[in-house]
Amino acid sequence: MLAEFVKEAWYVAAWEHEVQRLSLYRRLVLGEPIVLYRTPEGRAVALEDRCCHRHAPLSHGTLRGDRVVCAYHGLEFDPTGACVRVPSQNRIPQGARIRSYPVVEKDHFVWIWTGDPADADPALVPDFLPLRDPAYRWRGERLHVEGNYVLIIENLMDLTHLPVLHATTLASSTIPDNEIPVCYSSNEREIRVDRRIEGTAPPPYFRMLAGFEPNDRVDRWMNTRFEPPGSVFIDIGAALSGTDASGSVNGRRVGTWNLNAITPETLTTTHYFWAQALDFADEDASISELDFQLVRSAFLEDLAIIKGQQENLDLDPGVPRVNLAADKAGVQSRRLLQSMIKPADCQ
Amino acid sequence: MLAEFVKEAWYVAAWEHEVQRLSLYRRLVLGEPIVLYRTPEGRAVALEDRCCHRHAPLSHGTLRGDRVVCAYHGLEFDPTGACVRVPSQNRIPQGARIRSYPVVEKDHFVWIWTGDPADADPALVPDFLPLRDPAYRWRGERLHVEGNYVLIIENLMDLTHLPVLHATTLASSTIPDNEIPVCYSSNEREIRVDRRIEGTAPPPYFRMLAGFEPNDRVDRWMNTRFEPPGSVFIDIGAALSGTDASGSVNGRRVGTWNLNAITPETLTTTHYFWAQALDFADEDASISELDFQLVRSAFLEDLAIIKGQQENLDLDPGVPRVNLAADKAGVQSRRLLQSMIKPADCQ
Amino acid sequence: MLAEFVKEAWYVAAWEHEVQRLSLYRRLVLGEPIVLYRTPEGRAVALEDRCCHRHAPLSHGTLRGDRVVCAYHGLEFDPTGACVRVPSQNRIPQGARIRSYPVVEKDHFVWIWTGDPADADPALVPDFLPLRDPAYRWRGERLHVEGNYVLIIENLMDLTHLPVLHATTLASSTIPDNEIPVCYSSNEREIRVDRRIEGTAPPPYFRMLAGFEPNDRVDRWMNTRFEPPGSVFIDIGAALSGTDASGSVNGRRVGTWNLNAITPETLTTTHYFWAQALDFADEDASISELDFQLVRSAFLEDLAIIKGQQENLDLDPGVPRVNLAADKAGVQSRRLLQSMIKPADCQ
Repeated sequence: MLAEFVKEAWYVAAWEHEVQRLSLYRRLVLGEPIVLYRTPEGRAVALEDRCCHRHAPLSHGTLRGDRVVCAYHGLEFDPTGACVRVPSQNRIPQGARIRSYPVVEKDHFVWIWTGDPADADPALVPDFLPLRDPAYRWRGERLHVEGNYVLIIENLMDLTHLPVLHATTLASSTIPDNEIPVCYSSNEREIRVDRRIEGTAPPPYFRMLAGFEPNDRVDRWMNTRFEPPGSVFIDIGAALSGTDASGSVNGRRVGTWNLNAITPETLTTTHYFWAQALDFADEDASISELDFQLVRSAFLEDLAIIKGQQENLDLDPGVPRVNLAADKAGVQSRRLLQSMIKPADCQ
Repeated sequence: MLAEFVKEAWYVAAWEHEVQRLSLYRRLVLGEPIVLYRTPEGRAVALEDRCCHRHAPLSHGTLRGDRVVCAYHGLEFDPTGACVRVPSQNRIPQGARIRSYPVVEKDHFVWIWTGDPADADPALVPDFLPLRDPAYRWRGERLHVEGNYVLIIENLMDLTHLPVLHATTLASSTIPDNEIPVCYSSNEREIRVDRRIEGTAPPPYFRMLAGFEPNDRVDRWMNTRFEPPGSVFIDIGAALSGTDASGSVNGRRVGTWNLNAITPETLTTTHYFWAQALDFADEDASISELDFQLVRSAFLEDLAIIKGQQENLDLDPGVPRVNLAADKAGVQSRRLLQSMIKPADCQ
Repeated sequence: MLAEFVKEAWYVAAWEHEVQRLSLYRRLVLGEPIVLYRTPEGRAVALEDRCCHRHAPLSHGTLRGDRVVCAYHGLEFDPTGACVRVPSQNRIPQGARIRSYPVVEKDHFVWIWTGDPADADPALVPDFLPLRDPAYRWRGERLHVEGNYVLIIENLMDLTHLPVLHATTLASSTIPDNEIPVCYSSNEREIRVDRRIEGTAPPPYFRMLAGFEPNDRVDRWMNTRFEPPGSVFIDIGAALSGTDASGSVNGRRVGTWNLNAITPETLTTTHYFWAQALDFADEDASISELDFQLVRSAFLEDLAIIKGQQENLDLDPGVPRVNLAADKAGVQSRRLLQSMIKPADCQ
């Protein structure tokens, strides 16, 4: 797997609700210790969780207004990372500062920029539209994965494991069938795997969700998009044949988004933020809850496999891998990540 | 200790009962992940427990006839390790295969060959005769040892720890006494330590087992043979003086075999398969059970010491060791193993 | 932190009560395995806890008079580390010996010399006078610290963390206040930080201890002395102004000693022996118990911070540190240790 990280990027550091007022939250991202907190105004801040003085974790400390106070000697750091008070002396030593990570709160995520702050363009934050679109009902969570981050991306960019690993969970609601055409596409910014079949019977699960009749004919789709380094968007749905089912138009249709933000914790562990969003009426929330639990069951199956892959990688990281046709998007994703790591190395 | 393994060899991978139908069993041997299972006909198979596609452990998967089906993408491997089905495509990619370990089932053990399969000669499988000879009643088990495999071999090839470490367990039934002559012998295939005393009083334990009278005079023996890389056979017994007591002839005698198969799991942990076999009548099994428990108690004492040795080795592997006269067989065993490792390195 | 140890030194290996008759006690000091025991006469002995034969820990064994008997093969070692008996042979092999550490029992500690025994001058054992002076009532303990030993020394040599980290524990009884003059001094044998204020109000805690009246004026002091590699003595007290309060003279005064012996276990863990001694009458021991618990609460706060520092060091040991004026003594202490390590390396 990749033994380095893409640093010049936005990563989800936390769900917004994980970062609460009056509390300090330590999290490793790309192997770096980070403390997350909120200012009195509620703005999320991400600082290096390591006092510049004696390396104590600032997350052991307290908040004073928008400043973090180190538990050890009381050094105070403002949200820019500058040391602004040293209780034992009047002068702030030169160079007394810790790293401050640019933060953007968007789509219920706290995003941090792990590269050069000068390059932290908020316009580059990935767009998790369904999480802020009122047409969607969603639920998400964070899972801890005992495996390298690339193993998760490969998992999501690959359609063919669904009917196998998830035979008893996702198989009836998702699309994979070797007969259904796949369209791969990619550029420097994203990798896509689109799958679509027209005029087919509505699957049981979607019939239940959208009230299709048994004799209806529907068009179904499953479109996956990887936006490096860590976002994967999967649009799965069905609509009555003949209506525009390309995603956003309503009708007799079902649209679901599986949304994934993958943040390396270390080279062998990963924070996995994901949500499931549905765009159809659901008065009592039971359908969206059912959908979330269905996908969750499948993800736990993935996590067990990924942990096993990592165990084998730990035993011998050099064993070659055989690629299949269906790995096209996974291989492209890995190469795209690799290309984003390389330039950083040369700087 | 030895920081490498003898690869061109047969090792016990499991007791036959550990490998059951319809189940897949992961085991590390020489640090390599191996999945064990049985074909519908009951034949044991040992494959690399790492799918050639994405390195998922095949032991997470299922069996379809004599094939293993990977849990992740459904790739199927036959007992030769060849990939024979890829659900997502019709073509089997070139090179899609995993390692298959030659297997021999013999003497209730599942033996695997960890070297070049072309050299896997079943005639080289060590012979644990008492485990298949109806004259013997036996019981065995597998222990997990937190120490390098050589520590176990040295332990077994050394007589002098018996009266010390096992003072309250084995000491009364085994032979070590500095006055009893020892005969060391060795060749390229084995190391022997033979000890024999004639016309002596029967020890209490053997009197109980074989009904010797207090005034009887017996010949006693304790013969140890190491067959590298991992088999140690210890023949302990007594017979009325004057009868042929060299091992296989019956009379007023007691013969027991302590049988050991030592399989490295990693460089610091070992699978230890052992059995105790008795060749005398034992209608209610209580004697053989007693004997097994007696030896087991002693082995648990050994395992605690070996764990302590490994802890000291981990602290500083370079500390020199002082050899004693009684280490002759242990030192020879270690050298023999070393010589078997070296040639492999040169290939 | 320092990645090496000062070897030519006396270290506390144990409290005297930790080394009992008829028992063998394993302890790692500077990463070396050591077994501690007492001879029949009660003298403490410290030997390498690794038999020279097969590296078994001698602490698994037994005592025979003043000798340790290895549990494995019965080799016996006398208190000098010489092997004096090998049960399996009459001749003691040349070189059959283990390391014996010079031991001095003093001030309720078992001190060992980890350097060249020829240099083990008992006169160099640090002096923990209050632990043997009947004028003092004291209580001590051993704590296990998950951090490099230098982190503890820096902690003790630094006054400025007291009002911050220990705001709810020590702050009211100790002296730090930026207005109080500090006097730093050092030579090749010790580093001192002395703090003194005269004619001030007695703090509540000391009023309770010594019966000062609210209108009394007292002189207060807090004098810290580091004697490398591992002893830190802190003298904290107060006396009626105008009396000699320099430490040992009685009057209306309170004198307490915080005594610390820091012994590296490994490079990332430390044995921390400490005691609190009071020189004033305390009929029912409740005051000294209160004082001990007060300091103990503070030390547990220190240990949590030190563990956090070590976690950050483990993530990235190369991050630079910013020094403050108050780090003068800590920086000097670290340099002094470094200078004591360097010459040893050159030998």
